[in-house]
Amino acid sequence: MSIPDSGPIIVLVRPQLGENIGKAARAMLNFGLTRLRLVTPRDGWPNPSAGPAAAGADGVLANAEVFETLADAVADCAHVYATTVRKRGVTKPVLTPEAAAKEAAVAVGGTAFVFGPERSGLETDDVALARAIITVPVNPEFGSLNLAQAVVLCAYEWSKHAPAAGLVQPPAEDALLPPAPQEDLEGLIGHITDLLEPRGYFEPYSRADVTHRTLRNMLTKPGWNHLEVRTMRGVLTTLMRKPGPRER
Amino acid sequence: MSIPDSGPIIVLVRPQLGENIGKAARAMLNFGLTRLRLVTPRDGWPNPSAGPAAAGADGVLANAEVFETLADAVADCAHVYATTVRKRGVTKPVLTPEAAAKEAAVAVGGTAFVFGPERSGLETDDVALARAIITVPVNPEFGSLNLAQAVVLCAYEWSKHAPAAGLVQPPAEDALLPPAPQEDLEGLIGHITDLLEPRGYFEPYSRADVTHRTLRNMLTKPGWNHLEVRTMRGVLTTLMRKPGPRER
Repeated sequence: MSIPDSGPIIVLVRPQLGENIGKAARAMLNFGLTRLRLVTPRDGWPNPSAGPAAAGADGVLANAEVFETLADAVADCAHVYATTVRKRGVTKPVLTPEAAAKEAAVAVGGTAFVFGPERSGLETDDVALARAIITVPVNPEFGSLNLAQAVVLCAYEWSKHAPAAGLVQPPAEDALLPPAPQEDLEGLIGHITDLLEPRGYFEPYSRADVTHRTLRNMLTKPGWNHLEVRTMRGVLTTLMRKPGPRER
Repeated sequence: MSIPDSGPIIVLVRPQLGENIGKAARAMLNFGLTRLRLVTPRDGWPNPSAGPAAAGADGVLANAEVFETLADAVADCAHVYATTVRKRGVTKPVLTPEAAAKEAAVAVGGTAFVFGPERSGLETDDVALARAIITVPVNPEFGSLNLAQAVVLCAYEWSKHAPAAGLVQPPAEDALLPPAPQEDLEGLIGHITDLLEPRGYFEPYSRADVTHRTLRNMLTKPGWNHLEVRTMRGVLTTLMRKPGPRER
């Protein structure tokens, strides 16, 4: 891993299914997170179902640490965020994953994102340990997020805001070829006009100005690069040929 | 569902596992998306593994539509985005989920987010149907995203940028005509191909696939509206005429 071991720690409290632990590990590593902590996983640890679901993120599982209590698991963390979908009887700031990720990206001291068990979510006492709450804005009529999905959203948001994540970004649009110079485009417009003119395309001539403008707007819209302009001219040249068998 | 049936359509191409289809449906509904389309799911449809994994998003599965080809599945969509992790030999804009979601939130005409099979991802020919590519920026050393995870990230980003549930905002670009439906574009591509074929444009035939793809990419790039597509077809029809004096 060339990615620094510096991102938030993901803490799964009393996770039920090994498969979800594995999927959470995979989601973490997809976005450059490597530190996983488990609080009393239901079926013990290690769990044979976790490995296959991790789909290659074995290092994250191998380095996972197991704790008896959430308090132990976050003892060394300066910034603890509890994820929950429901309102709790606690007065803490409620952040979106995006807002929490922005804080975590510049935080001094360790950050933990804490996730509850699949069915029930975090207990009020767990939430009480956190400085702030992360709530994913979801469909109010279908709000139950899968555990690994909640993890991936937080990891993804962290990676968007953390320069240290070192993720591959899509190439900027300028990596694509620029639109052809205007004179190439004029050459194409002239070419197609010369072919259309004797075939009556611009009749009636009272409407010819509008027709010319329509054609020009349409051919200007694509922003074709010089190769695409050349291809289009090749198409025009080909269309002028007589149809028939060719290649041998 | 009080959420309007207006978000992007999620298209899963040749999905392998019913469980992943169910998880994708759950992720969609979490963020207010309800329209699911399947292209030749490996194990047929319906799939008994999908329901349990959907965890209550049964309506999304019940309304899922099955298609033989991706072209059929996106025929009525004006904006088709292909998700892929790898660089492809196609010249199309590459967007993050966030950038695509921002476009989709204000798009006029239907939007489709297209996802490939679990192991292999989308084929080059699938990608060629799209106007743009969505690439999730991931850990370069561990880039393989789970299918349902890729869906949840796109659905989540869409929900962040879409108008609030139940409210239909006036479209930002209502002065502009949307890109023509994909089937109009296919009609144009078929028209030009039929004219070029007997004139030897696709020779040598060893290169025909590449030539077809170049042509398709070039004609997909403009995002022509239905009037512009019709104009282009009129141009082609005119070019087939014999030149000579006409009007009077």
